[in-house]
Amino acid sequence: MNRLDILGRFKALQDEIYEGLKAFDPLMMWQEDQWDRPGGGGGRSRAGKSGGVWEKGGVNFSDVHGDLNTALRAQLKTEASSFQATGVSLVLHPKNPHVPIVHMNVRHFRLDNGQEWFGGGMDLTPHYVEEEEAARFHAALKTICDQFDGDWYAAYKGLADDYFYLPHREETRGIGGIFFDELGALPGANLEQAFAFVQAVGSGFLSTYLPLVVRKMDHFVSPHHRDWQNMRRGRYVEFNLVHDRGTRFGLVSNGRAESILMSMPPQANWAYSHSPVEGSEEAFTQSQLKKGKDWIGES
Amino acid sequence: MNRLDILGRFKALQDEIYEGLKAFDPLMMWQEDQWDRPGGGGGRSRAGKSGGVWEKGGVNFSDVHGDLNTALRAQLKTEASSFQATGVSLVLHPKNPHVPIVHMNVRHFRLDNGQEWFGGGMDLTPHYVEEEEAARFHAALKTICDQFDGDWYAAYKGLADDYFYLPHREETRGIGGIFFDELGALPGANLEQAFAFVQAVGSGFLSTYLPLVVRKMDHFVSPHHRDWQNMRRGRYVEFNLVHDRGTRFGLVSNGRAESILMSMPPQANWAYSHSPVEGSEEAFTQSQLKKGKDWIGES
Repeated sequence: MNRLDILGRFKALQDEIYEGLKAFDPLMMWQEDQWDRPGGGGGRSRAGKSGGVWEKGGVNFSDVHGDLNTALRAQLKTEASSFQATGVSLVLHPKNPHVPIVHMNVRHFRLDNGQEWFGGGMDLTPHYVEEEEAARFHAALKTICDQFDGDWYAAYKGLADDYFYLPHREETRGIGGIFFDELGALPGANLEQAFAFVQAVGSGFLSTYLPLVVRKMDHFVSPHHRDWQNMRRGRYVEFNLVHDRGTRFGLVSNGRAESILMSMPPQANWAYSHSPVEGSEEAFTQSQLKKGKDWIGES
Repeated sequence: MNRLDILGRFKALQDEIYEGLKAFDPLMMWQEDQWDRPGGGGGRSRAGKSGGVWEKGGVNFSDVHGDLNTALRAQLKTEASSFQATGVSLVLHPKNPHVPIVHMNVRHFRLDNGQEWFGGGMDLTPHYVEEEEAARFHAALKTICDQFDGDWYAAYKGLADDYFYLPHREETRGIGGIFFDELGALPGANLEQAFAFVQAVGSGFLSTYLPLVVRKMDHFVSPHHRDWQNMRRGRYVEFNLVHDRGTRFGLVSNGRAESILMSMPPQANWAYSHSPVEGSEEAFTQSQLKKGKDWIGES
């Protein structure tokens, strides 16, 4: 693959999403940082806060390269000695607890042994699960996948279920989405198709997520809803700091901590042994955080 | 070592500290849970909340045993196939940002190959570092250590500096304290002395920490102080979920998540690229979060 082409498309994707978010929530205040990574490469972080719709979030572009240390070699299961990683990553934490947290990432990896591949995904973490919303989100992802291969949605939906899972809580992070990695890595694989797919996922983000935001951004919010939101955000923190490979890869590879941790919510709360009241909306949400749910079929 | 003796002393230590905390902060509401671990053993968790002095915290006793899986064998650097771990662990998150967070742990480990040892420590995480407070805390720890060996304070203070460190933030978690592990593990080592030492650390907790609480629990609190407290609590979360071996050991060894995560603060906040105003108390605190500071000498 042409490296400059990937760089150009990923940077343009960051711009496209950033402009879309700014137009949707003009109150959000953004800070852009261009940064260099000590070991090689750098990035362009755009972090937003205090919007009318989103309380905190970011859309980051990065293009880093460097030596693979022992920890990284183990994580990538390779004997290669250096890597190059280019990607766009976003997380948005809404103000209204009825609006779901969203995460999207597309990335390209290349090792000095010539191996290269694409990875990425998009997933939704509602504070309050609603079946209709989950069905809409998964249907939109299926439409994107189906343009490429009729089997991809089911496969990558399954990978997202497995990936966004907190074993110590025995619950999924949210309602999942799609997750894929090492696309085009096998000899003879179609790298061009993999590149086209991550572009479709990236440029499908706004049209997938924003309609879901519109449905609920003005829903009534009580202090009780806010408390539950902050508890769920605590689980989001637990997943990202304990399990998320991207976060751990970034911290271990001497990445820029502020950019990596832009995924943290503005606030998170913990209470000992909290469990929602039986029959409540919160209890319903808790009951839905399971792997293997067919969100589209159930709606 | 006599296992029942260790069990008895550790349980009594939990009682002693629990009763001390209850007497000091009668408003705090406690919940006790006796639990069994699926793989073997169990514990007695005591979690407190909504006190006048402490917003959240816990004093846990546990005595667990089971098989060592691959991850645990790697962490313990052993070929043994089963383990037994007994310990008392506490974390307290004060309401007043001027009062420091405290952590104390004592533990006994035994492997089925006959190896056994003690470990533990006590450390302080002020939201606002004050040299006088740091000097008092470290002097109290030195007094405990000096009863056993004149070299231990310096050695275990150094280990705490190394352990309670966030590489991605290039800062220590707080002002440190003492940290030690594998005490008495070497053939011919004095296990009785190691046991006496962890008991001295445990029963020295209340008299070390409470006088520091008294000095500041009624200090004036502004919303600004509260914001800073929640940012510092965010760093506490980062350390515990990304680095802390006890937390990771617990989660990997199928421990009881609620007991392990009782160390989480009631609330934590994250802001992108926050840095304190030059010359402020917050900037002073940030400047003090360094390894290798001689807190006693500087006061």
